[in-house]
Amino acid sequence: MRRARPGAEPGRGAGAGCPEPGPSASPFDRDRRESEACALASLFDPRSVAVVGASANPEKWGYWLAAGALAGRGRRAVHLVNRRGGSLDGVPFLPDLGALPEAPEQVVVAVPPSQVRAVVAEGLAAGARCFTVITSGGAGAAEERALAAEVTAHGARLLGPNCMGVVDTTSDLRLSWGDFPAGQVGLVSQSGNLALEIGRLLARAGQGFSRFVSLGNQRDIDATDALLALVRHEPTRVIAAYVEDFRDGRRLARALAAAHAAGKPVLLLTVGRSAASGRAAASHTGALVSARATVAAVSRDAGALLLDTAGEVVDTAVCVLAARGARGARGARGRAEGAAPVPPLATAAPSWPLAQFPAPLTGRSSSTPPSHPQALRIAIVGDSGGQGALAADAFAGRGLDVPPLSPETTAAVAADLPPGAGCGNPVDLAGAGEADLNTYARLARTLLTRGEADAVVLTGYFGDYATDNPAQAARETEVARDLADAAAHAGRPLLVHTMARDTPALAVLRRHGIPVHERIEQAATALSGLARLRTARLRPPLPTPPPPPHRAPDGGYETTRDLLCSYGLTFPAAEFVRTADEAAAAAHRVGFPLVLKAMGLAHKTEAGGVALGLADEPALRTAFARMTAATKAHRYAVEAMATPPYAVELIAGVRRDPAFGPVLMAGIGGVRAELLADTALALAPLTPDHARDLLLSLRHAPLLTGWRGAPAVDLDAASTALCALARAAAEHPELTDIEVNPLLVHPGGALALDAHAVLGPP
Amino acid sequence: MRRARPGAEPGRGAGAGCPEPGPSASPFDRDRRESEACALASLFDPRSVAVVGASANPEKWGYWLAAGALAGRGRRAVHLVNRRGGSLDGVPFLPDLGALPEAPEQVVVAVPPSQVRAVVAEGLAAGARCFTVITSGGAGAAEERALAAEVTAHGARLLGPNCMGVVDTTSDLRLSWGDFPAGQVGLVSQSGNLALEIGRLLARAGQGFSRFVSLGNQRDIDATDALLALVRHEPTRVIAAYVEDFRDGRRLARALAAAHAAGKPVLLLTVGRSAASGRAAASHTGALVSARATVAAVSRDAGALLLDTAGEVVDTAVCVLAARGARGARGARGRAEGAAPVPPLATAAPSWPLAQFPAPLTGRSSSTPPSHPQALRIAIVGDSGGQGALAADAFAGRGLDVPPLSPETTAAVAADLPPGAGCGNPVDLAGAGEADLNTYARLARTLLTRGEADAVVLTGYFGDYATDNPAQAARETEVARDLADAAAHAGRPLLVHTMARDTPALAVLRRHGIPVHERIEQAATALSGLARLRTARLRPPLPTPPPPPHRAPDGGYETTRDLLCSYGLTFPAAEFVRTADEAAAAAHRVGFPLVLKAMGLAHKTEAGGVALGLADEPALRTAFARMTAATKAHRYAVEAMATPPYAVELIAGVRRDPAFGPVLMAGIGGVRAELLADTALALAPLTPDHARDLLLSLRHAPLLTGWRGAPAVDLDAASTALCALARAAAEHPELTDIEVNPLLVHPGGALALDAHAVLGPP
Repeated sequence: MRRARPGAEPGRGAGAGCPEPGPSASPFDRDRRESEACALASLFDPRSVAVVGASANPEKWGYWLAAGALAGRGRRAVHLVNRRGGSLDGVPFLPDLGALPEAPEQVVVAVPPSQVRAVVAEGLAAGARCFTVITSGGAGAAEERALAAEVTAHGARLLGPNCMGVVDTTSDLRLSWGDFPAGQVGLVSQSGNLALEIGRLLARAGQGFSRFVSLGNQRDIDATDALLALVRHEPTRVIAAYVEDFRDGRRLARALAAAHAAGKPVLLLTVGRSAASGRAAASHTGALVSARATVAAVSRDAGALLLDTAGEVVDTAVCVLAARGARGARGARGRAEGAAPVPPLATAAPSWPLAQFPAPLTGRSSSTPPSHPQALRIAIVGDSGGQGALAADAFAGRGLDVPPLSPETTAAVAADLPPGAGCGNPVDLAGAGEADLNTYARLARTLLTRGEADAVVLTGYFGDYATDNPAQAARETEVARDLADAAAHAGRPLLVHTMARDTPALAVLRRHGIPVHERIEQAATALSGLARLRTARLRPPLPTPPPPPHRAPDGGYETTRDLLCSYGLTFPAAEFVRTADEAAAAAHRVGFPLVLKAMGLAHKTEAGGVALGLADEPALRTAFARMTAATKAHRYAVEAMATPPYAVELIAGVRRDPAFGPVLMAGIGGVRAELLADTALALAPLTPDHARDLLLSLRHAPLLTGWRGAPAVDLDAASTALCALARAAAEHPELTDIEVNPLLVHPGGALALDAHAVLGPP
Repeated sequence: MRRARPGAEPGRGAGAGCPEPGPSASPFDRDRRESEACALASLFDPRSVAVVGASANPEKWGYWLAAGALAGRGRRAVHLVNRRGGSLDGVPFLPDLGALPEAPEQVVVAVPPSQVRAVVAEGLAAGARCFTVITSGGAGAAEERALAAEVTAHGARLLGPNCMGVVDTTSDLRLSWGDFPAGQVGLVSQSGNLALEIGRLLARAGQGFSRFVSLGNQRDIDATDALLALVRHEPTRVIAAYVEDFRDGRRLARALAAAHAAGKPVLLLTVGRSAASGRAAASHTGALVSARATVAAVSRDAGALLLDTAGEVVDTAVCVLAARGARGARGARGRAEGAAPVPPLATAAPSWPLAQFPAPLTGRSSSTPPSHPQALRIAIVGDSGGQGALAADAFAGRGLDVPPLSPETTAAVAADLPPGAGCGNPVDLAGAGEADLNTYARLARTLLTRGEADAVVLTGYFGDYATDNPAQAARETEVARDLADAAAHAGRPLLVHTMARDTPALAVLRRHGIPVHERIEQAATALSGLARLRTARLRPPLPTPPPPPHRAPDGGYETTRDLLCSYGLTFPAAEFVRTADEAAAAAHRVGFPLVLKAMGLAHKTEAGGVALGLADEPALRTAFARMTAATKAHRYAVEAMATPPYAVELIAGVRRDPAFGPVLMAGIGGVRAELLADTALALAPLTPDHARDLLLSLRHAPLLTGWRGAPAVDLDAASTALCALARAAAEHPELTDIEVNPLLVHPGGALALDAHAVLGPP
């Protein structure tokens, strides 16, 4: 996995600034930071490194950092500093950074908290370009921010404090503690122990890390910086990230989309599904936990996979590598090695190389709901009917397709099998594998190449034949090689679920990048992640709107209605009045039947502040009198009563997430809305096409497209209305919440029947 | 795990018949079979066994069966038969069963298909009591049934054909192929390979099998027989089953309930969620795949856990053993060894020993929805904040509770930890475990004993300290023992999730029954299974009603309405007429407004055969004329128009499942019913209490109990109506389907507005 020094690191030696014009052409803010993030060469492959707080005591962090740094002596100068002297591996500890014979490009700081500031100042004076501060505690947030400001004011960068360091297995950089097996997975993590866990699981799967960045308190280099550096790092082929604190969520979302567009999808872990995880994260790094549903929506639109556990990340990463490797390995051969092209963040390409699987996707129009991606077709070969059937169920349960085989392929399968075996999908070997190990490879090749499956899964016994019968060892490893060859040749992934563990045949499979799973559910989770990645539509955040021309004065119906009308939302005709006589006069202009609403109430329906279906003036006057008595309101809306046929009630709103900003919610409304809980989210603003896909992703989408003989609602009008609401909210950050409920969508258009907003503090 | 021979097998030597009066007191059919099933001593612990088709060639089944049988020579006589002679391990092969010096109690048959019948006849003549037929193929279903009939006519029993044999690790019986590690899990399986997979995973978890029964084609001994034999087998503490073909599903359901009541819950695997698994099962044993939703409902009401994969079964089994072992081990010491009491199938106790966890359950009335069991409270101790938070999310995602700790317990935890650690739930050790390994045991003991958690989970690094630092090995295994002791002492399960694998400390944990998981999701799945078992309400099938007094002549509205009325269902007042004049006359008796319905149409609404809200006679006559023209119907219902306030539309029906018989479905109705897909199932007939729980288990149950200020509907009336429908369907098997749609439930009662049935072939 390790590569020779020259040319290994894109942008290496360029200091700051990216070779690609993309990011600097981006119209968005923080472009300068993107450019700087692209480099980070001083972090991942410094010409020289100094470990301050080096130690010869293996119980100290300073020992592991120093020992790790020394392991890279073949590639860079390594200096060890400890004011009390000493040495490690024959390298004497210098008293301070001033004593170094050269400027240390990176300084790793593992000294007591009280000494950090002085060490960093020393390093800056010595010309250091990057500081990795392991030290935790002692300093408050303000002091840490001041430290970061001092570093960046010198044009240098800071990782941490309170981090576990940095590892780049492709540049022999190991400035951390623990095992970091080499491989193709880049990891960015706010938890060091989780990184160790992922590393352990990757190693068992025959994989490992290209780079690992421990974020710590993210006072300068943050998750987005680290992700972008992984996107640009050619040996990194898939990215894993554990992030508790999203900071500038939109910038992160653009980085996720850039990763997907570069063919290196991000497998994301975060916390916050439970109150308890919020407590844990709060006690850990004081993180602001973003609502998980928002993160899920952002991930979907940025082509990232939001997963739940370290195990899922590892299984999915290995599966993605297998799927890409099958093509990528061939593709890479014809291309000069070097920097992977990074598309500009804002214009990330809409599809990912996996979508170019040999089996062509049937046309997918923009009206296809994005939450129902075209299923990945899986062919299963089981050593027994039971295992094959359980696999099929596990896959179906995760939205994968286990289609019947064509008669031709069934015949081809049957030709490889004795009578009595099952030749459908799943294929039931019924002992044929045991009788002739070559059966596995023959069948895998047949199923991988006939274009009826996007992936093939073996489930059962393969890999264990030599355990009981050593005479079969050579044959079994040979078949393992054949299997890997079949997958590589077909350009489709092959996954193996087996009751064996750590046998020579499995080692061969893993060495060739074939995912091997102890449990069938692992294969199911990994393939379902692959399916989602394959059909992802990249929709990175749209530009942040300019500051509002005016602040909304309040969040009442009248103001909110005016605001939304100015963005193009349609409301029924209405007039606002103070007296019964004004109401009667307005009624004849608005037209009966109509609705009377009292203004200025928080819950006007409950307070008796809404009267529907008033058919004539006497009814209006009676309602007015009753409403005035009940609500003491000073202002009323006299509004046309809209009852368009075949209407469906939606609820739509925008809430402001601390990390991600305004988030649009659209869902099925009505009195049962809370029970249905059928909603979809996206960052605001958004395009009509995106809004349409949100609506079509609802479980109850069939209500909108013509349910039980009803005509379809006007989806264009509904999408446009959502976009108008989203834009209004995005351009009026003074409104923390804004809601339209109900939004009546019907075959003739979309009509907002009520709206209100919450005005934030000035 | 192995036990001395005398007294090991309940009922051993009794031939047939159970010591308990339970089953024979059961009022249900097949009592005799239940009694026989209780014994099966000839299957699990025969005094002598003969292997026909014995071989000295390890590539043949006959070798493994013979070698396995010989391993039990210390306990029983073993005879090997092969007409071509030979010997194994010094034991000569006899030419046929007639040459045996004694009657073989069990005969294992591994001869070519054409010889099976003759061998069995020979065995019967020699006095064999049980046949285990490994041989597959050759014979059709009819021939296999004839074989079984011949065996049972002699009072003997048959396992198979086409099975993988039988293993009882407590009686040194190993008549199969493959590894079957000894332990406390009883397994009944229709798939041999799946059994091997489960065995492999159990062994890795430090567990194994008490008994394994391979069902094969179930021509005599079926899944229920085998399950009952495991229920009666004292060393079996938890039961796993893979069943494709449920045969008499209600008998099986009673066996599942008996297992739960005996404190040995059944962890059930089946197939059929996907079309593909159905194809696989069909090609495997020609099984009738029952609809999974039905199996799920039956499992819920029988206290069994329907799981999805072999891995889930193993994780859950080990967790259940840990939870029971904590109490069970102590309880067992005070009791003489011998037969576990088996409650009669029909009157299984309503709760399972796990419900007696020290932490008392708060009162659970029958109105608590059974699908929202009181959550199991989990305390988490993480080596890092990230791992703790991910664990909390994984648990919350599976309905488990990770509650905050009380101030007192927080203080007790803090006393064990250095400053900076997180003392909430999850506890974040933040390096304290690394600094002092005893911290793990101290904290586990604190959390296990303070009554605020039903289970404690460690997540992180424990078990791996000695890997990098052998000096810590002794200390780490000592702490492992302390952890196990803490769990045993507290009587609550402790689970360990760790990045280590197969280290000495983990071996200690496993030896003491502590579940150790490589992935946190495994702990989450296991604990969520435990939670479901703990709150299960046993509702085994009610008695099958007697044959119907009369057959329903058709499935039309009038007939179905009459039938359901006779069972107590309420319909609006109605009269059935042929002409407009009859309709007008009837209308004045029924009262306006009313509904006119044309009879004899399959889809009367779509055909223009329903007119609602007819306010007076002219409206009725107009509608009648229009309807006659549109439908050409000869008969009409003139029915009162029921619009009770605050009504909720339900849909209710009964369908006949091939294995489980009539199954009641109740769900939220209305035009969106299919989109909501909010339904619950139970076997029919059922009790009102059960029906009530079904309704309250719906996602939309809040609609029934008073949603947004509406009064609650009359749940008693709704439940009674469902019971009436269920009983009518159960007593009229000639109706394959029967449906009431809508069933209007409201604060004043329950009213069926329409009904129809499907009459099966005579």
